[in-house]
Amino acid sequence: MAKAGFVTSITRQSEDFPAWYNDVVRKAELADYSPVRGCMIIRPYGYAIWESMRDELDRHIKRTGHQNVYFPLFVPRSLLEKEAEHVEGFNPQVAWVTHAGGEELNEWLAIRPTSETLIAEVVKDWIQSYRDLPLLMNLWNNVVRWELRTRLFLRTTEFLWQEAHTFHATEQEAVDEVATGLEAYRSVAEDWLAIPVIKGRKTENEKFPGAVYTLAVEALMRDGKALQAGTSHMLGQNFARAANIEFLDRDNERKNPHGTSWGFSTRMVGATIMAHGDDSGLVLPPNVAPVQVVIVPIFRSDEDRTAVAGAIKPLEAALRDSRRTLPDGRTEPVRFQVDWREETPGFKYNHWELRGVPFRLEVGPRDVAAEQGMLVKRIDRSKEPVPLDRLAAELPDRLDAYQREIFGRAVAFRDDNTHRIDEYDDFKRVLDEQPGFVLAPWCGDSACEKQISTDTGATIRIVPLDQSDEPGACLRDGRPSRQPALFARAY
Amino acid sequence: MAKAGFVTSITRQSEDFPAWYNDVVRKAELADYSPVRGCMIIRPYGYAIWESMRDELDRHIKRTGHQNVYFPLFVPRSLLEKEAEHVEGFNPQVAWVTHAGGEELNEWLAIRPTSETLIAEVVKDWIQSYRDLPLLMNLWNNVVRWELRTRLFLRTTEFLWQEAHTFHATEQEAVDEVATGLEAYRSVAEDWLAIPVIKGRKTENEKFPGAVYTLAVEALMRDGKALQAGTSHMLGQNFARAANIEFLDRDNERKNPHGTSWGFSTRMVGATIMAHGDDSGLVLPPNVAPVQVVIVPIFRSDEDRTAVAGAIKPLEAALRDSRRTLPDGRTEPVRFQVDWREETPGFKYNHWELRGVPFRLEVGPRDVAAEQGMLVKRIDRSKEPVPLDRLAAELPDRLDAYQREIFGRAVAFRDDNTHRIDEYDDFKRVLDEQPGFVLAPWCGDSACEKQISTDTGATIRIVPLDQSDEPGACLRDGRPSRQPALFARAY
Repeated sequence: MAKAGFVTSITRQSEDFPAWYNDVVRKAELADYSPVRGCMIIRPYGYAIWESMRDELDRHIKRTGHQNVYFPLFVPRSLLEKEAEHVEGFNPQVAWVTHAGGEELNEWLAIRPTSETLIAEVVKDWIQSYRDLPLLMNLWNNVVRWELRTRLFLRTTEFLWQEAHTFHATEQEAVDEVATGLEAYRSVAEDWLAIPVIKGRKTENEKFPGAVYTLAVEALMRDGKALQAGTSHMLGQNFARAANIEFLDRDNERKNPHGTSWGFSTRMVGATIMAHGDDSGLVLPPNVAPVQVVIVPIFRSDEDRTAVAGAIKPLEAALRDSRRTLPDGRTEPVRFQVDWREETPGFKYNHWELRGVPFRLEVGPRDVAAEQGMLVKRIDRSKEPVPLDRLAAELPDRLDAYQREIFGRAVAFRDDNTHRIDEYDDFKRVLDEQPGFVLAPWCGDSACEKQISTDTGATIRIVPLDQSDEPGACLRDGRPSRQPALFARAY
Repeated sequence: MAKAGFVTSITRQSEDFPAWYNDVVRKAELADYSPVRGCMIIRPYGYAIWESMRDELDRHIKRTGHQNVYFPLFVPRSLLEKEAEHVEGFNPQVAWVTHAGGEELNEWLAIRPTSETLIAEVVKDWIQSYRDLPLLMNLWNNVVRWELRTRLFLRTTEFLWQEAHTFHATEQEAVDEVATGLEAYRSVAEDWLAIPVIKGRKTENEKFPGAVYTLAVEALMRDGKALQAGTSHMLGQNFARAANIEFLDRDNERKNPHGTSWGFSTRMVGATIMAHGDDSGLVLPPNVAPVQVVIVPIFRSDEDRTAVAGAIKPLEAALRDSRRTLPDGRTEPVRFQVDWREETPGFKYNHWELRGVPFRLEVGPRDVAAEQGMLVKRIDRSKEPVPLDRLAAELPDRLDAYQREIFGRAVAFRDDNTHRIDEYDDFKRVLDEQPGFVLAPWCGDSACEKQISTDTGATIRIVPLDQSDEPGACLRDGRPSRQPALFARAY
């Protein structure tokens, strides 16, 4: 690289994807490791991306009738152990408070790995009658699951998330609610983060501990590995029975309500990086980009600087007044920044490309003379001269088009890397040579699923919801398969 | 009470203030205790109030150049113990994680009681040069301080808050930043929550452990007790030295930066309840009220119900299109609800009065005939017939006026209950007979301050900033006093 002295170099994505990811996260200043093993610090640029997806999901959650609440960080040991499958699933990952206020505690307190058991215990006082249902709650909080191997955003001991918890009078209402949660995740992933996802059902091996079944949305990263982008659980009456929640129904019978829970976490920041990024760093969808356009003034003399500043000033005023209309009808101004730092243009291009800013506008003395700027698109580095007096008015549409383009590119990538396979040898070869999603027939047996995973490192991500019956023979043992399952190596 | 069967009765405020407070919090469904000792559950109505003040403060914080970040929940013991005064102040209240992931930890981890020590340790890598300063960060998170006696919102083992942490090249910049934080709290308290506050400096006894000095805003509750509504700390170079943070300044010298930190918590929900509430329950300022106007249809027959519904429908449409302009220029629609539940009007009046909704509109068949509704103001129960076709247009101004009225009433209450006292006997008598703020001369000696507290239960809340020198004789020992201190019994 000619300007090696000026740039923050990162590992090439094609050379070493994990090293590329780590470089992007740290050098774009999204997050960093902390003095506490496995816990991360989310820096301003990373937190702004999280705030954007959090706020978008929060709007969905509220529009669909859920209310935000807060429940304690601690879960007493006796409560965590009430639901047998649940405790078995989470116990090995729990962090325990044993001492507090200068004393040893009588009962250990778990740092919540999730809040099902605590919430079930509390709502039994709130749910007396069918009139108290449905109860539609959502929590934004931090949870802790002790992890041995951690990766920033993707797998950290502490992470931020949203956990919805709902209770319903009938099974059908709970089934519908599980779908409502999943649709919220599809919408945020696809319409906000420009990440195409496939909806499906987890296998028995992979479902949430204590759930009747778990639905998930799965996305494909640019290295061909899958990432779970949100899960929605049908809890049935499991937690309600364990906590003795009963309500008097319309028919005067006492019943246990049917529960659901669903969650979406800071790992989606990692998904956004890995779904769109390239050798130069982040490629951010405009909806979530903290800066949507960066203006880089180019000058050598004070005289040039004055001329460029004079041309940029009215543009800034116009951008401050700009309004972009979002999918839900809200409007917001274009988020822009002018980079007047004392660095070379090359340094600045690199700086903002690393940070995935959708558009860069270069304005030099010759541009000023022509009353234009050079608009560079991050996704393909295409350049186009644009009249300065038209830019603010055009940018909202250009950002919309960019948002569509980045989604379209991700859909095409996903489709190009989804393989339909029937034979086990082909399956193994494709996973090594063209990693991606593999749709393949599976007999439905848990032991067979585990053996495939042991043999190949690939797991069943989901059995996709949106497919009709397609009888076949299990790729490993030849037993009958009703529908293909979606396999992949995964984060 | 004639309608005793229909109403949720609460203790009268004048009879037993603490019982009144507890009734309001629990019966208006703001919060409740949890199965974890000292930890609270914040219910939807209480959380919506918290979200409103949180979002308003977040806008202030961002407007003044601070960026949101996230730091881990855990602080390793060795870090917490780096600043001597700090550890002494917080150690007795810390909750400790000793086991995690099925093993005993080599080093105990504190659940953060606050994050100064962890942040200082991390930013030493980020602050190398004066160009890296100022570093202006803010965190929204949960902290834990083990408390023996807890009260919902006011003193809980876990609470939600915001903690800002900043680092500056010069002492003066840090001094200015401490004032910036304090002004954010004044603005949210007065302009958003309608709670008048006094700015001042904490005494040495009361300052933050590890700080050079602490500023605070103090508010007066309706029982005459004071409540600290936010604190802003000048940390000087204390934490920076303990963590070895050094930067290369413009003059090529290596220096420790000057730090500040400031915090505002869920206890301000408690302050909002106690600053405005009355015998019927909450009285909420419109800016923060989750529901600003409730419409109560009144009918006995199906025919009446149809007529009333027909009159309310166009009003609902008009309210959905309404826009109220907020202090910062943003606009938002009026938040309204129509209460069609199968309950008596009396039950509904009581329900919404308990919840502090600023306006109630009663619409019955006779109102419909007259094309009007009866608008009832929560703060004084005054009634006024209002034409239904004008209400949506008038409500934004009426809400503004209500916001001013509730603030004016609180200022008058505070002024009526602030006493200027010179003699110790008068001081003791006033605290018992007319509890409130007491401005009294004090010699500045810590031992004397503690003796006054032991004698009377009153503490020095602050030495107000906004007063000129006023020499006097200390109310307890007669030694010279430069300025009066502000005393009160306090939460």
